[in-house]
Amino acid sequence: MSSSTTSITAAIAGFANIPSRAIGATARDVARLSLLDWLAVALAGLDEPVSAHLRALAAEEAGTPQATLFGHAAKVPARMAALGNGALSHALDYDDTHFAYVGHPSVAVFPAALAMAERTDASAAAFLDAALIGMEAACRIGAWLGTRHYNHGFHQTATSGAFGATVAAGRLAGLSGPQMQHALGLAATRASGLKSQFGTMGKPFNAGIATANGVEAALLGGRDFVSRPDGLECLQGFADTHQGEAGDPAAALAGIGQTWLFENVQHKFHACCHGLHAMLEALALLRGEGLAAEAVERVTISTNPRWLKVCNITAPRTGLEAKFSYRLTAAMALAGKSTAALDSYTEQTCADPVLVQLAERVTVAADAAVGDTATRVVVETRDGRRLAADFDLDRPLPLAVRREKIIAKLGALVPAAASDLVRLDSALGTLSARELAARVGLHAVRRQSC
Amino acid sequence: MSSSTTSITAAIAGFANIPSRAIGATARDVARLSLLDWLAVALAGLDEPVSAHLRALAAEEAGTPQATLFGHAAKVPARMAALGNGALSHALDYDDTHFAYVGHPSVAVFPAALAMAERTDASAAAFLDAALIGMEAACRIGAWLGTRHYNHGFHQTATSGAFGATVAAGRLAGLSGPQMQHALGLAATRASGLKSQFGTMGKPFNAGIATANGVEAALLGGRDFVSRPDGLECLQGFADTHQGEAGDPAAALAGIGQTWLFENVQHKFHACCHGLHAMLEALALLRGEGLAAEAVERVTISTNPRWLKVCNITAPRTGLEAKFSYRLTAAMALAGKSTAALDSYTEQTCADPVLVQLAERVTVAADAAVGDTATRVVVETRDGRRLAADFDLDRPLPLAVRREKIIAKLGALVPAAASDLVRLDSALGTLSARELAARVGLHAVRRQSC
Repeated sequence: MSSSTTSITAAIAGFANIPSRAIGATARDVARLSLLDWLAVALAGLDEPVSAHLRALAAEEAGTPQATLFGHAAKVPARMAALGNGALSHALDYDDTHFAYVGHPSVAVFPAALAMAERTDASAAAFLDAALIGMEAACRIGAWLGTRHYNHGFHQTATSGAFGATVAAGRLAGLSGPQMQHALGLAATRASGLKSQFGTMGKPFNAGIATANGVEAALLGGRDFVSRPDGLECLQGFADTHQGEAGDPAAALAGIGQTWLFENVQHKFHACCHGLHAMLEALALLRGEGLAAEAVERVTISTNPRWLKVCNITAPRTGLEAKFSYRLTAAMALAGKSTAALDSYTEQTCADPVLVQLAERVTVAADAAVGDTATRVVVETRDGRRLAADFDLDRPLPLAVRREKIIAKLGALVPAAASDLVRLDSALGTLSARELAARVGLHAVRRQSC
Repeated sequence: MSSSTTSITAAIAGFANIPSRAIGATARDVARLSLLDWLAVALAGLDEPVSAHLRALAAEEAGTPQATLFGHAAKVPARMAALGNGALSHALDYDDTHFAYVGHPSVAVFPAALAMAERTDASAAAFLDAALIGMEAACRIGAWLGTRHYNHGFHQTATSGAFGATVAAGRLAGLSGPQMQHALGLAATRASGLKSQFGTMGKPFNAGIATANGVEAALLGGRDFVSRPDGLECLQGFADTHQGEAGDPAAALAGIGQTWLFENVQHKFHACCHGLHAMLEALALLRGEGLAAEAVERVTISTNPRWLKVCNITAPRTGLEAKFSYRLTAAMALAGKSTAALDSYTEQTCADPVLVQLAERVTVAADAAVGDTATRVVVETRDGRRLAADFDLDRPLPLAVRREKIIAKLGALVPAAASDLVRLDSALGTLSARELAARVGLHAVRRQSC
């Protein structure tokens, strides 16, 4: 634990109530991108078994119609809406990631913010600002807890996420500074979530835990519930008990409210293993320069050796195997078949003769000089040209490019809803959170009744 | 982690469904004592602020009338009833304790069992058996996690308690063995609760967390929710991430179903932290030998080091803090102020100059040679005498004596309800869980309307 006297719990509670006008335009624009992305992955995840289980729990419990649970006909209490929407939006593992947080900001925070915004009849703009502030808090706390916390086995989406969800929900519930500190203290005793659940429904459920914990802490905090106002940093508090690195809080909080860690959030644009994404982006660059599939003689992919054990199935036969194949996804990208759409990854795709022949022209080479997040692609063409492209996922993309890519992802993931989601985003300043949730809810019900 | 191949998660899941006829008569009799004790502390705790906060949350959420939340007019969903009853019955810190578990079995398990028994319309006898089996599971898992888990900062009532609550609720919900394993796996990612909340409403809330987590895990487990079926013992599972000692599971499970650790549960006869009781009994021995407060020059309390982080608030200012103070409760005992009466623990008591001066004569010393359940008291008198007394809570009392003391406690705590609670206990074999809850609920409403 740090010997500094800065209370990170108190500082985060103070940050939670900064005026909306203090929020940077870029941070808000990036939050809007994450909102679009989150709505798309939520709608696309509705039919997953974990989503159905949580809707069944909601149907059994029923209760005051406060907030929208996507895919569920009736509104439900805010805490239940948050639990369900957190789980269903993480079900596909296609949501955003923040590497400083070591977690997925959207799925842990947006559901709490939306449920509380509906409950309190806030504007959509206030909802977005609260979510952004909550996601920034989750990133700051996540970075402060550090990778030791993650590596020890805690699913940071769920743990740091619970604090971010508390901030977002607490802001919308109008908590005072002291109330917010106690709400964060409650989150400190309630936060949980283990990485050993990966590969089970427990993983998306962990996102639901985070967001439901945030709503609960905010509701109780608003009633002057007394917990530890220093619950994050106190002796045997959250960091101390959960292997938090808990370095200098002043460093963790540096520039908070002026600089936004959240801006570096990464969105997923391909519905496959993250190890393939840099290659797919490099190939997209070459296609953008006019490369056609027919012109390809030979493709060489240079990637960090660690990925060869992760996603180098040379001749995939199932949709799941396709998601872990450099050769097949390279062929898909070259042939213009969407790597963003979930239904691109099928047995039919694996057997498609055009793709199979293209895949046979692809060689994958290990190169320790290539970074973890990068890939180098060299294409030799039939007419003797040699085209090369590099891509590093860590390289920041201009906002307009990110937005374009997210809109393309919407089209691939939820084609029937995509244009309406973009319209909703444009109208965000004029909508209430309830109107926003209701419009998205309509798409959910439409998908469910297909 | 142990290298044994016994899965403690699987073994506990198997134990959860033993036939009722396999339960030992003594274990069941002790469970009945704990039920009486639990009902009394629940009724007595209804007016605590934490209880009011959780009833307000229940009123806001409403929902399907499945189970009784004491003091609340309408029935609520089982998960909410469990959350509220767990918190309100632990609010006074007057409930039972098990030292192998290192926690409070009743408040973590009875609320889950009662809520699920009402939901499924089980008999009161089936409710009692499920609760006993859940409490035994909590004791076994608590002992397996060990004191390292507790000393690291985890509130074992909440953590081991969540698994016990899952067992009890899952048994009543009719979970199969595999479903029970997955429910325990869900509890593994959901269980939480920190000791740093002691002295705040977060402490009783932790009991509510345990019991609500158990009901939730049982409800989802019954829907074939897939989590980790080895969630307690797997790599980065609950024990591994939460500083569990996790010794040989075969030893932890030895004789389970034949011998009942639960039988050694301790009931409280002082309305403060259990860590203080051995000292209070030792001081009572000295007072019985004629020691007067005026004679005291200096008091030295020797206690196991672990208690210093639990109940050693040196200068308490609130009634709640007083319940965690060796020095003040020692002063109360020396001055003949009742430590059994709830209304002894007030701001006035903390500020009473006679008590404050006496408290200043008390020194608390850590002594690792003193057992967890014992305390040694040495009093030096103004006239130069040196009086010593030891007390160990683990000294077994005959069942009839325990029952007598509990009935006396009922009379002191809830005089208007005491005789009816004893009648209910006698009629347990003929009642449904709903009838039992309704009868207790009537007393709760009567108290509330006073």
